[in-house]
Amino acid sequence: MTDTPSRPLDADAVEQYRRDGFLLLPPGFLPTDVLDTVNSLLPDVLSEAGPARILERDGATVRSVYGLHQSQPRIAELTRLPALLGAVQQLLGGEVYVHQSKINIKAPFAGDQWEWHQDYIYWLQDDGIQRPELINVAIFLDEVTEFNGPLTFVPGSHADGLLAATDVEGMPLGYEDAPAWVATLTANEKFQVAPTTIEELAGRHGLVSPKGAAGSVLLFDPNLLHSSAANISPFRRAMLMFVYNRMDNLGQPMANPRPAFLAEPEPRSLQPLSA
Amino acid sequence: MTDTPSRPLDADAVEQYRRDGFLLLPPGFLPTDVLDTVNSLLPDVLSEAGPARILERDGATVRSVYGLHQSQPRIAELTRLPALLGAVQQLLGGEVYVHQSKINIKAPFAGDQWEWHQDYIYWLQDDGIQRPELINVAIFLDEVTEFNGPLTFVPGSHADGLLAATDVEGMPLGYEDAPAWVATLTANEKFQVAPTTIEELAGRHGLVSPKGAAGSVLLFDPNLLHSSAANISPFRRAMLMFVYNRMDNLGQPMANPRPAFLAEPEPRSLQPLSA
Repeated sequence: MTDTPSRPLDADAVEQYRRDGFLLLPPGFLPTDVLDTVNSLLPDVLSEAGPARILERDGATVRSVYGLHQSQPRIAELTRLPALLGAVQQLLGGEVYVHQSKINIKAPFAGDQWEWHQDYIYWLQDDGIQRPELINVAIFLDEVTEFNGPLTFVPGSHADGLLAATDVEGMPLGYEDAPAWVATLTANEKFQVAPTTIEELAGRHGLVSPKGAAGSVLLFDPNLLHSSAANISPFRRAMLMFVYNRMDNLGQPMANPRPAFLAEPEPRSLQPLSA
Repeated sequence: MTDTPSRPLDADAVEQYRRDGFLLLPPGFLPTDVLDTVNSLLPDVLSEAGPARILERDGATVRSVYGLHQSQPRIAELTRLPALLGAVQQLLGGEVYVHQSKINIKAPFAGDQWEWHQDYIYWLQDDGIQRPELINVAIFLDEVTEFNGPLTFVPGSHADGLLAATDVEGMPLGYEDAPAWVATLTANEKFQVAPTTIEELAGRHGLVSPKGAAGSVLLFDPNLLHSSAANISPFRRAMLMFVYNRMDNLGQPMANPRPAFLAEPEPRSLQPLSA
């Protein structure tokens, strides 16, 4: 980090992130050409078969592609956009690297729901990351509406820390022949939070689905309880997601580490992209 | 109908229904004790196993119970509430009966999505009703929010009339052993409208999910294209639904008529309930 780190977020925004566990920034927060850059890369990214590409239950529709900060130099650059990197460093309070990146596509009529979960349990249990000092960043590649499967949060639920979750044995329906780590990437969450816990938290805090135009940026805490509905609309809902972690919060060595495209094996402190 | 039929809807409301194909009325439209009446009947209604009760794919959660205006005298009375019956007669312009009634429960975490469809094709093809002069009435038994699987409409799509739909052969997954008419009642619609048609209509008209407090009343046209998302929330979304049809629009005799709880075999003109 430089001696005079940028602080792109004002005090209200920081306070909001701490209180709610998420922060939605308008499209103007990022340079206007970011969407063009990502959209120009999308056809290649989505068409490349391989283990980093996860399909929907139907075996045909692309659900996610992982490891983009590793495979796509132009996406690696986006993780270093000064405003974005600065906001993440400001909120995490230190130097950071990208632990995971992906594109999530919710195809029209087809994008499946994601059950209620917290992200951090995967990074703790599968990757050995000891503290929840990570930030999820979602860049909206399409307008997100109430109809195309928005992320749905229980605001403030991150303050309860990691919730008790049941480790579901076996592979989800339709993925029986896939490698074991695929169980952490499908619509059926491997770690399931009890319905009574979700009901209690949602009863106390309510629910919220941040919505916005393409180019909006949504930051959220790895312990924020969230889910997302299926996309029943005729309109795509794609997001580019970066998971930043603090450099002093690297994962412990694991007996069976996940593939590189799920857990960065060579963390490097990110420096802001020069103008 | 009496010589001086009531006209509970003002000109704006009628115009809105004609233009959009739906009309949402606030809880005050019905007497305040309606919800108590229905809620007191619900436990018995939901616990009675039989062909009129349809379960979700999981084989355990109640999805719908049909024929309530036949099996429950107090619900039969609700179909004759003066404001409700008056509004339906006003919009349809004649005497009416209830062709079908049901409770749709979208259970917390479990209520499945309903794919895009128009209701009228079932009443035409399965029940021989020759003109789309019916009205769907949904009484919200719970608050309907963006999170608990609201009905989603393409407003104005009713004006295009009955859309071309593919008759899907066979029984949907999980219902293979059920009677054939069950295919018309599950999440997998029997008649499927082409995705390109849905996309074109939604692109032209947009999408809307009417939301409101428990006790709200939603009227919609049988040709209105609609769907509903799964209920990912911890909160129930139950609706009591009545399908009114004009007395001069009775179904033609069918070779294989559907069960009475799906298609009223003894239509009787409804008179408003006396105070």
